[in-house]
Amino acid sequence: MSEVREKSLLAKQAAAVMNTLTTEQKNKALLAMASALTDQYQLLMDANQIDLDNGRKAGTSESMLDRLALTKNRIEAIAEGLRQIAELPDPVGELLEQFERPNGLRIEKRRVPLGVIGMIYESRPNVTVDAAGLCLKTGNCVVLRGGSAALESNRAIIAVMKQAIAGTDVPADALQLIEDSNRSSVNEMLKLNGLLDVIIPRGGAALIQNVVMNATVPVIETGAGICHTYVDESAQLEMAVPIVFNAKVQRPSVCNSLETLLVHSAFAADHMQQLLQPFFDANVEIRGCERTAALVTGIKPATAEDYRTEYNDYIMNVKIVDSLDEALAHIAANGTQHSECIVTENKAHAERFLQEIDAAAVYHNASTRFTDGFEFGFGAEIGISTQKLHARGPMGLPALTSTKFRIYGNGQIRS
Amino acid sequence: MSEVREKSLLAKQAAAVMNTLTTEQKNKALLAMASALTDQYQLLMDANQIDLDNGRKAGTSESMLDRLALTKNRIEAIAEGLRQIAELPDPVGELLEQFERPNGLRIEKRRVPLGVIGMIYESRPNVTVDAAGLCLKTGNCVVLRGGSAALESNRAIIAVMKQAIAGTDVPADALQLIEDSNRSSVNEMLKLNGLLDVIIPRGGAALIQNVVMNATVPVIETGAGICHTYVDESAQLEMAVPIVFNAKVQRPSVCNSLETLLVHSAFAADHMQQLLQPFFDANVEIRGCERTAALVTGIKPATAEDYRTEYNDYIMNVKIVDSLDEALAHIAANGTQHSECIVTENKAHAERFLQEIDAAAVYHNASTRFTDGFEFGFGAEIGISTQKLHARGPMGLPALTSTKFRIYGNGQIRS
Repeated sequence: MSEVREKSLLAKQAAAVMNTLTTEQKNKALLAMASALTDQYQLLMDANQIDLDNGRKAGTSESMLDRLALTKNRIEAIAEGLRQIAELPDPVGELLEQFERPNGLRIEKRRVPLGVIGMIYESRPNVTVDAAGLCLKTGNCVVLRGGSAALESNRAIIAVMKQAIAGTDVPADALQLIEDSNRSSVNEMLKLNGLLDVIIPRGGAALIQNVVMNATVPVIETGAGICHTYVDESAQLEMAVPIVFNAKVQRPSVCNSLETLLVHSAFAADHMQQLLQPFFDANVEIRGCERTAALVTGIKPATAEDYRTEYNDYIMNVKIVDSLDEALAHIAANGTQHSECIVTENKAHAERFLQEIDAAAVYHNASTRFTDGFEFGFGAEIGISTQKLHARGPMGLPALTSTKFRIYGNGQIRS
Repeated sequence: MSEVREKSLLAKQAAAVMNTLTTEQKNKALLAMASALTDQYQLLMDANQIDLDNGRKAGTSESMLDRLALTKNRIEAIAEGLRQIAELPDPVGELLEQFERPNGLRIEKRRVPLGVIGMIYESRPNVTVDAAGLCLKTGNCVVLRGGSAALESNRAIIAVMKQAIAGTDVPADALQLIEDSNRSSVNEMLKLNGLLDVIIPRGGAALIQNVVMNATVPVIETGAGICHTYVDESAQLEMAVPIVFNAKVQRPSVCNSLETLLVHSAFAADHMQQLLQPFFDANVEIRGCERTAALVTGIKPATAEDYRTEYNDYIMNVKIVDSLDEALAHIAANGTQHSECIVTENKAHAERFLQEIDAAAVYHNASTRFTDGFEFGFGAEIGISTQKLHARGPMGLPALTSTKFRIYGNGQIRS
């Protein structure tokens, strides 16, 4: 039996035990994991050093090595994340609906764990801990397949966490790490219907597309964000400037950052230079339409392809439109249904934008950077869903649950 | 451009209009469709006659022809179904969550349409109308791909319904019928990410498996039911007999009917003959374990394969177990997570069964035949989901919606 199948089978067996645990039993395991990680930080850093050395030899970029690196402070922050998960309310068992039928049947709909979650991700070792914590808190087992560049770090993290939960009621088999770094192990996970209940990919576009296009197990897609902000005719300049600048520059590498700025022509005629000046000052490359270039110097021409690109970088498209309708049409044609914003003082325009834009999160007069589990008050998140089924937008703990109907009768039969 | 792509694109364009309609506008279209179907029943029956003649020539069984046949009464019942859908509450726009963050951001989570739903189904023309009605009510567009055996019927139904909504605010393009009866049109739908938001298959196991194993568009699986009823040691005979008999015999062809009866050995020793006698009287074939055969005559031996078979017929497996644990283990190994029942007077056993069984619907002392949208009070259903993501069990109208976060700010930026 392959490693993937064997470990997934162990996880599925452990899922039956997880389903019976109380919140207290699960929290005890999370806190034990947190303590063990901080206690054994040196062991984790030693394992991480092997990954870092291998990465450096392989010519990995410094920014990638930085994402991979574990320090004592980072380990403490990761452990603190587990403690925060322990403090979140447990969605499992929550009564969602309750009703009695005329025939006397009493029907309850309650939240239950999903079962076994497959996580496929890249080389950030913190995802190993976050995913384990979120899955265990919700009564799930997890089969983790991280990037090969972090394999030694992940092995050490999982060993420490499994040892920690050995003294609790959470079965050690609830946590599984796939160590086979061949791509075939990913592809095997994607087809493991019956053992894995859901696959959640986290990483770059190529990783996510491979999962979406090849999985037969249901997937929660955490996809790309080509996010827009539309500055309407009636926008206030002093509100528009910080919102747009924050959306682009506060952290360009993330999915909820701005890629394309749309500006109403009347607003542009009066304010385009002032709107764009902070970006020039911050060395953001601006690719614009011809009308933008006619108003402001220093604009490179934007191509149709640019409008469909998630830069994740200090590059921004700017396009002038003549109406709200034109802005809506541009976003419908180029957006990825992630986070979209309108800056306007016109309430009717705001309502139309919020109603008509098809996206996980739609904003009036605020930065798109708020699309985030912590910013929404949900706590740690397993990702931001860009699909429409099951969960959309920042996923709190309830996104890691399913439901079950419990029906109480006293002999009812169907006529 | 292929027929599938062209019609899906038209549906996607229409989805933007559907998203802005009020409940009243949608209901008006549903009622117009209902009236048109009853008014033009002769046209529908004429088209249906062509399908029936073709089917008869092709040697289609009488039971299949019966499922395909439209009569005036059946058309009236189908139209009545549309009127009932019009009367159901509209989930679109429902406020699911509302909260304000410390920074003043006001966040709403509201139900929105899914967008474009692809339905892949077999030869019951009533599904064409039901699916159209349920999808339009929830603000969705639908691309219908029915069985080729019902093509003339479906063409006529869609023509009548499109004509009916032409006089309303619902765009005619919201309803699309794929007329290409090659299997390649199904396979093209399964990969139409970006145009179709979800695929819902309805039909036999082969159809559903093809969809689940080949779709890259998210799927809601409406799968097989290998349902069990476990008669515990403490069960009352007079309650157990009708529950078990109803679960098996009331309508054996459907997914929530009983396939395997599990009986505690102590109950079996006293009552097995009385428990099974009604099945012998009804000419149900019984395949049993050796212990069952030792207690009752007329039992064929059950194989391991029998326990994993959805008969959908007058055949039932019977197995004697020595404990609740053995019953739970058998169901975990052989069930399809659809509907499972325990008949018992022991409340602790009932609670363990309802907690530990991993299924969409778990019953205490009632027939599994109640797993049904109408029986739960949800009204017409698009199907019964056997997956854990998005919707599980009978799917009411909310299962045909997604959600959107609407965020109202006054200049908030992220620090």
